[in-house]
This record gives sequence, C-alpha cells and structure tokens, in this order.
Amino acid sequence: MTRTLADWRESAYRVIFEADTPAGKRFDVVLLWSILISVALVMLDSVASIHARYGAWLYRAEWVLTALFSAEYLARLVSAPRPWRYARSFFGVVDLLAIVPTYLSLFFAGSQMLLVIRALRMLRVFRVLKLGRYVREAAVLQQALRASRPKILVFLYTVLTLVMLIGTLMYVIEGPERGFTSIPTSIYWAIVTLTTVGYGDISPVTPAGRLLASMAMILGYGIIAVPTGIVTVEMARARDSASVSTRTCHDCTREGHDLDATYCKFCGAGLPPLEPF
Amino acid sequence: MTRTLADWRESAYRVIFEADTPAGKRFDVVLLWSILISVALVMLDSVASIHARYGAWLYRAEWVLTALFSAEYLARLVSAPRPWRYARSFFGVVDLLAIVPTYLSLFFAGSQMLLVIRALRMLRVFRVLKLGRYVREAAVLQQALRASRPKILVFLYTVLTLVMLIGTLMYVIEGPERGFTSIPTSIYWAIVTLTTVGYGDISPVTPAGRLLASMAMILGYGIIAVPTGIVTVEMARARDSASVSTRTCHDCTREGHDLDATYCKFCGAGLPPLEPF
Amino acid sequence: MTRTLADWRESAYRVIFEADTPAGKRFDVVLLWSILISVALVMLDSVASIHARYGAWLYRAEWVLTALFSAEYLARLVSAPRPWRYARSFFGVVDLLAIVPTYLSLFFAGSQMLLVIRALRMLRVFRVLKLGRYVREAAVLQQALRASRPKILVFLYTVLTLVMLIGTLMYVIEGPERGFTSIPTSIYWAIVTLTTVGYGDISPVTPAGRLLASMAMILGYGIIAVPTGIVTVEMARARDSASVSTRTCHDCTREGHDLDATYCKFCGAGLPPLEPF
Amino acid sequence: MTRTLADWRESAYRVIFEADTPAGKRFDVVLLWSILISVALVMLDSVASIHARYGAWLYRAEWVLTALFSAEYLARLVSAPRPWRYARSFFGVVDLLAIVPTYLSLFFAGSQMLLVIRALRMLRVFRVLKLGRYVREAAVLQQALRASRPKILVFLYTVLTLVMLIGTLMYVIEGPERGFTSIPTSIYWAIVTLTTVGYGDISPVTPAGRLLASMAMILGYGIIAVPTGIVTVEMARARDSASVSTRTCHDCTREGHDLDATYCKFCGAGLPPLEPF
Repeated sequence: MTRTLADWRESAYRVIFEADTPAGKRFDVVLLWSILISVALVMLDSVASIHARYGAWLYRAEWVLTALFSAEYLARLVSAPRPWRYARSFFGVVDLLAIVPTYLSLFFAGSQMLLVIRALRMLRVFRVLKLGRYVREAAVLQQALRASRPKILVFLYTVLTLVMLIGTLMYVIEGPERGFTSIPTSIYWAIVTLTTVGYGDISPVTPAGRLLASMAMILGYGIIAVPTGIVTVEMARARDSASVSTRTCHDCTREGHDLDATYCKFCGAGLPPLEPF
Repeated sequence: MTRTLADWRESAYRVIFEADTPAGKRFDVVLLWSILISVALVMLDSVASIHARYGAWLYRAEWVLTALFSAEYLARLVSAPRPWRYARSFFGVVDLLAIVPTYLSLFFAGSQMLLVIRALRMLRVFRVLKLGRYVREAAVLQQALRASRPKILVFLYTVLTLVMLIGTLMYVIEGPERGFTSIPTSIYWAIVTLTTVGYGDISPVTPAGRLLASMAMILGYGIIAVPTGIVTVEMARARDSASVSTRTCHDCTREGHDLDATYCKFCGAGLPPLEPF
Repeated sequence: MTRTLADWRESAYRVIFEADTPAGKRFDVVLLWSILISVALVMLDSVASIHARYGAWLYRAEWVLTALFSAEYLARLVSAPRPWRYARSFFGVVDLLAIVPTYLSLFFAGSQMLLVIRALRMLRVFRVLKLGRYVREAAVLQQALRASRPKILVFLYTVLTLVMLIGTLMYVIEGPERGFTSIPTSIYWAIVTLTTVGYGDISPVTPAGRLLASMAMILGYGIIAVPTGIVTVEMARARDSASVSTRTCHDCTREGHDLDATYCKFCGAGLPPLEPF
Repeated sequence: MTRTLADWRESAYRVIFEADTPAGKRFDVVLLWSILISVALVMLDSVASIHARYGAWLYRAEWVLTALFSAEYLARLVSAPRPWRYARSFFGVVDLLAIVPTYLSLFFAGSQMLLVIRALRMLRVFRVLKLGRYVREAAVLQQALRASRPKILVFLYTVLTLVMLIGTLMYVIEGPERGFTSIPTSIYWAIVTLTTVGYGDISPVTPAGRLLASMAMILGYGIIAVPTGIVTVEMARARDSASVSTRTCHDCTREGHDLDATYCKFCGAGLPPLEPF
C-alpha cells in the first residue's frame, strides 16, 4: 500500500520534475506552451481594444489556466520528496507567485498584471531542451559575470557619485524652468545621458548646459567602455579555464592543451582522456 | 551537335557563374551596376516629389531592367549544370525574388517595393572582387558569430524575460494615460531603453517610473557589455585559429596546432618548425 | 599630562581616521549614514512640492548636520598627526567643501545645492567595508585606465577635431532655420550623435543633412569601438600582471614575471616554480 | 651669397618645420595659439547675437589672421627643400585650404565657414608636444584600425544591406503618413535605430512597426558588438606586437620577452638590448 504510494510519488516526481522520460518531456512541453499562452493572454488583455471585445473570454481563459497551474503546484508539493524545500526553492516561489495574482485580483483589481511573472517559469525551457550545451554556456556566462561583480560594483558606485554631481551641477546651470525641475530629475537626466539612452524628454538649452552635457557624453563614451572591458576579460578567462586549463600532460606536466588534443604539444606524450563535462 | 551545345553551356557557365575569365568578370561588373541602378530607382521612386515628376520614366526603366534580369535568370537556369539545384540555392531564390515583384505589381500595386530585395544580389560583389582576403575575413567573422550563437541565445532569452518584467512593471507604474498604453507597448519601451536607443516617443514621467527607468538603463549598461564580450572572445579565438591553422602535421596532415606546439596534438609526431610570419 | 594628551590624540585618531577598531568602525558607519541622509535631504529640498511643505524642517536638519560635520572636521584637524597635510589631502578638502556651502547659503541663496559634494565623502565607504578585495579591484581598474590614458587622449583629440568638422559641415548644410542655430550648437549636435546619445532636440531634416548624419552615425559605430578596445586590452594586461605579479625572484627580489617564465628576466637566476592557483 | 641664402633657408626650415630648437618650438606654439583663436573666432561669428554685436571686429581679426597664415604659407613654400612636394603633402594642402576660404568669402558670402578646416592644422600639436609616447600610441591605434579595415568593410557592407531591407520593410509597414515618407527616409531611420542613436524624430507607431523596430534594436545589440570585437582583437594584437614580439633570445631563439626583460625567461641567457623606437 505505502509501497505503491511511494511508487506513485516516485513516478509522479519523474514526470513532473524531470524531463528525461517521454512522459516527463511531454508534461514539460505542454506546461511551457500553457505558460506561453497565459503570458500572451495577460499582455493582450492589457490592450484596451482587445480587452473591450474579448475581455470576458480572456477572463475565463485566465481562470482555467490558473486552475491548471494551481493543480500543478499542488501536484509538485505532493510528489516532491521534500515539499518544504521545493516550496522555498526559486522555482517553487515562482510557481506560487504565478497563481496568486489571479486570486488576488478578486480583491484588488488589476493585480492580475503581475501574472507576467509567469514569464520566469519559462526559464524551465532550458531544462526541457536538455541542451547540456546551453547549460554549459550559461554557466560560462554566469561565472564571468560573478567574477566581474566586484569590479562592476566599484564601477557602479563611481558612476552613481558622478551622476549625482553632474545632475546637481546641471540643475544649478539650467534650472527648473528648463525641465530640470529638481535634483532627482537632473540625476535622472544625467543617467539617461551617461548611458547614451538620450530620450530627449529633458535636454540642455543654455550654452553652458550644452557644454557640460557634451563633456558628460564624451565622458560616458569612455565610461561605457569599462563594463565592456571588465566582462570581456572575465569572459575570456571563464572561456579559457572552461576549455583548456583542466588538462595536464603526465610526462612534462605542462597545461594549456586544446579540447581536441590527444598528444601533448610540448613533449609528444599521450594525454589523459578528456573528462566529460 | 550535342557536343557544341555542351561546349556552349560550358562557356556560358564560365561567363555567367564564374568571374575569373575576363568575360565573366565583365559580365558580373555589368550585372552589379545594373542591380545598383535598379535598387536606386526603386528608392527614388518612393520619394513622392520624384515619383510625381519622373514616375513614368522610372516605371519604364524598371520594366527594362526586369526584362534583363529575367533573361539573365533563364540563362542561369539553362547554363547551370544542375538547374534545379541552382534554383533552390540561396542566390537562385534571391535571383527569382528579384524579378517576381515587378510582375506582381501588375496585380498588386506597391508590391514593387519588394524589389529592394535586389540589394541581396549585391552580395555577389565579394565574388567579383575575388579578394580572397575579404572572403577569409568574412569567414573569420562568420566563425566567430557561429561560435557565439549558443551564448547569444541564452543571453537573448534572459534579456527578453527581463524586458517583459520591466515593461509590465512600468505599465503598472506609469499607466496608459502617460503613453504606456499597454503591456506590449511598455515592453517596446523597455527594449528601446535597454538597447540604449531611447527614441523618447514614450518616456517615464512619475518619480517611481523614472527611478525604475534609471535602474533599467544602468542595468542595460552592464547588459550591453555581454554580447560585446562574447563576440570579442570568440573573435579572438577565430582569429588565432585562423592565424594558426596554417601549420599542418606531415604525418596525419591535420591542422589547427597552436603557435607553441612542438608535437602534433593528434598523432604525436614532431611538427615542422613554425615558419616566420 | 602631555603624555595623556598624546594618548588622547592617538586614540581619537584611531577612532576617527581608521576603521579597524570596533569604535572606529562604529564611528565611520554613523558618519556614512549621516552623509547619506544629508545628501538625501539636499535632493528632496530641491523638489518644489517637498520644499514648500517641509522646507523649514529640512533647513533645520541641514544646520544640525552641518554642525555635526563641522565638529567632525575640527576633530580631524586636532587629532591628525599632521593637521596641515590632512587639510590639503583629497578627503581633507572634500570634508571642508562639505560644510562651507551651508555657511555660504547665509549670504548667497541656493548655494546649499553644492552640498551634494558631500556625495564624494561617501567614497570613504570602501575604507569602512575594508574589503581589500574591492580596493584591489579598484586598483586594477585604475591601473588599466591610467595605462589607457595616452591612447584615450589621442582618441579624444581626433574625435574633437572630427566633431568640429562634422558640426560645421552640418551647420552649412542645414542652416540656422532648422535648429542648427550656430556652429557651437551644431558641434553639440555632432557630439550627441557620435556618442549615440541622440536626444533628438536637434535633428537633420534635409536629405543632404540626413545623409551626412547617417555617415556620422555609422562612423560613430566604429569610433565607439575604439575606447572599448583600448580599455579592454589594458584591463586584460592589468589583470594578467595582477595575477602574475605574485612571483618574486629570490635573487633580485623583483616581480612581474610571466606565467611561462623559468628564469628571472632581470637577473637571469632560476625562478621558483609557479605555485598552483 | 647663395651660401648665406642657403643658410638662411636652412635655419628658416628648422624654425618653421621643426620643433626641436627653442625658436622652432616657440614658432609652433604661437602658430597653434593663433590657429586655436582663429577657429574660435569663426565659431563665435556663427552665433547670431555675437555676430550682430562684434561682427565687424571679428571680420577684421579674421583678415589679420588670414594675412599671417598666408605669410606663413609662403614662408613654408620658400624655405621648404622641395616646395612642390610640401605643397602636395597633407599639411601643405590643409595649410592652403586654411587661407583660401577668406579670399573666397569676398566672392561667395558664408564660405568663411569652411575656415573651420583650420582645426585640422591643430593636428600639428602632436609634433610640438614631441611626446614620442603619444606618437607611438597613435601608431598602435592606426595599426589596429588598418588591420581591422577589411573586416570592418565586410561588416559595413552587411550592415548597409541590412539597413536597406529593414528600412524598406518599415516603409511598407508604417507608410508615408506616419513619418516614413520615403524609402531613403526609412533607411535613415533604420540607421538611426541600428546605431542606437535614436533621435525619435521618426519612430514606429503601429504594433507591427514596433515589433519590427524591437527586432532591429535587439539585432543592433548584437551587431554593435562586432566592430568592438574586431577593433579590440586587432588592438590586442597591435599592442602585443608593439611590446614584445620584436625580441628574440640568441640562445634558444624564443620570442615573447617583455620590454623590461634583460635575460631570456626560457633559458636564462642574456637578451640583446632593446632597440629604441
């Protein structure tokens, strides 16, 4: 009895959480499509004209999908070996947040907007694709970004200080009557400028202001180069370490062999086989 | 008889498809110029004032060019060793698409716009230039981009998710009355912002919206660094392998040895010394 | 007596200037928070609506904070071993500039805007965090930027010349009636365009102007790549030297040896084997 | 007699063309300042308000400067060993173009705008600074850019084709009534978008147009990474080749020694002294 129950949970787990059995894969594909559809519905519903005509249908469709997702969430809770740990995991939280807004919308109108959080569930796609390749690439990216974080932080901190000073200076120069209504607004302008976004909703008019702006832009020129440099360097590192540095020749003990190397390029001795990733 | 026909096809092929005989080169140069002219005509025709005055002339000129291109297309079909394979090749399809719109324009007005697709035919220019140099550079670029694809895809996927969340959040914060008329529109705004294009046709007004926008921009700052890093790293790789691949092992005749390699990494045989660049 | 005074100064110094004693750390944390608050107050005060309602309170709060900072400044002067040197140091000047504006505001209205300079004091945060890590990263960044300076200067000089020529050309083409009111204004436009900021407050209208603008943009495309390239290369260098500089020659005790070095490049003595990272 | 004349020309040459004698340096500094002033005058003169008040003065000042520059030009012609070669050299042409507009302005009003070409003369500054350092850096930049040219050309060609297709598609989608008045205009828009300048003078309104624009932007995201990658890689190459690859150890004949290396890092033998740049 418990035996079969354990079996049932076991198999349910394989279907719901994993994607390497045909059933599991089918389950995940259906899931992804329904997520995609639900997100699309939320977006369409936000378009006034569409809402006016199909609002009622979209509303029902949303409840149906929410019901399905709720059922799925419960199934996950039940079949998970450690339900509580799943509930606190990243995907556990996302899965919950993906259904709550609909219920909330009963009390707070408009809160169903938050359903777009379902987009995050789409991240499961990588597990379905089961392209170890993509996972590894993603890992390289992550490693590079993690390695760059401290530098990026120092950089961001400097940029923020810079932006505050430029913004205030601009506020003093141009003044409220020319759109720079307050220091925070001017800082917003400074960010828009330094990041080279340049909406143009606020832009300097006085010669002095334009001179300062020009300096800020040319500064932003050099500044935008910094994060790129940081990430590029770290990425090159991550890539190299990912590709080569792991293999050593047992004879001359030198490293730096390519992935497709069978013999040491320094002493010609045979290399140890490449361990699978 | 068939003999001479074969000869004729043979020589026609050399003239039309290849560019290493004087005749063939002349043919391609004439072709490129007429393509250039035809594309220019389509563009000029789209300018109202020009269309009003020279519309009739342009119309005739277009038919003449189309006739020429049609003849050329038939000639290609006839002279090609495997007509059907040519017809399905990239250039074969482009060549066809480059003449169809004119005939379509008899039934659907305005469809001659699509003639701009002729621009694609210009890509033949590289074959005419016959600058192996350019071809090789293009190859390096392609290799680098192909190698970066998986990373770029992972990156794009993350950006899209990000853009959806930021866009929706902005829609909730700023609301329709401030230009963020719907979630898709807000997502469009988020893309315009993250890519640092910043049209300014839609821009945040409320302090909260501007705060979020500032965060998005500073985020975009770091984000724009990622593809650059990816491509740069891959390009460095492609370049190195391109500069290296000139060495061949005399035993297994395989290439791709590093500059500091003394022994073939595939068969372990000694490599020929590196010729000075 | 003097003895105890010396002691007092000694301990005061440790509390005020250093951050490795509990007291010192507490002091700095309190300081940072009050700086943060004071900067925030200045910003809020610049918002018309807030100024109208809470202006009086903000005014008082500012005076309180200024009094505190003044006391702190004096304490620093007194406890510093060489008061005069501190006064002329970067932070010494910033600390002074951080209190002066308030007093000035008694004579010149609005000068309290300059209090935002207090933001610079926030840079002390890195000393408090005492994250040698961050300091080191900052050092790498600085080294890279310092190394890139000459190239960057050459680059900037070229860009400025370019911008002057493009701007003037545009002024000649578009003329004052289309927003390009003067050469300086056109140069401002050229900078806005080349840096890809693109406010759109001034933009070409005539075909000729748009053609020139398009060329300028595509040029800016390549141009923006240059500083990035410079910084990236220098950063890679700085990073490598940072990772390498750990090896010291036991004979001449000099550092900066490459990873593949077996002998000291300065004195030719054998190097200690590279410790694994 | 001829003797002394030759002497005179000799010394005049040293003063006018070179900058390593005190007199020569003084001459060049004065020259640079007068160029700077003349360029500034042209710019100021283009500002309506200033022109109205000081137009007459600026006009006279310009003639004075032009007279000086004309005299200088003649002096250069006379003292140059090969006058004709100087006249055809880059600086020779620029020097001429720097005075012609003033005379032209007698016949064609407004042509004095072209005087801004004098800015090019400023490039002499590097020779005055005589910072071999800067010259070398500039050389590295040039080398990198020259090496990247073929790749950049292939890249530009692809971008132009892309821009033509996107522009035309946009023209078909949005149509003249929404600002996309003609295909050339739409191509201009496509360039503004792909280069992430984003003026916003023309921007898509229809959902389809915005979708296409979003794709174009995200595409531009990746595209902007390409030139950066190209330049960065070439720059790294140029830098390395500039710094190391020039020296070879006479014992083990291996390369890649740092500039500050005295002994071979591979075999410990003494290195040949570094030849001065």
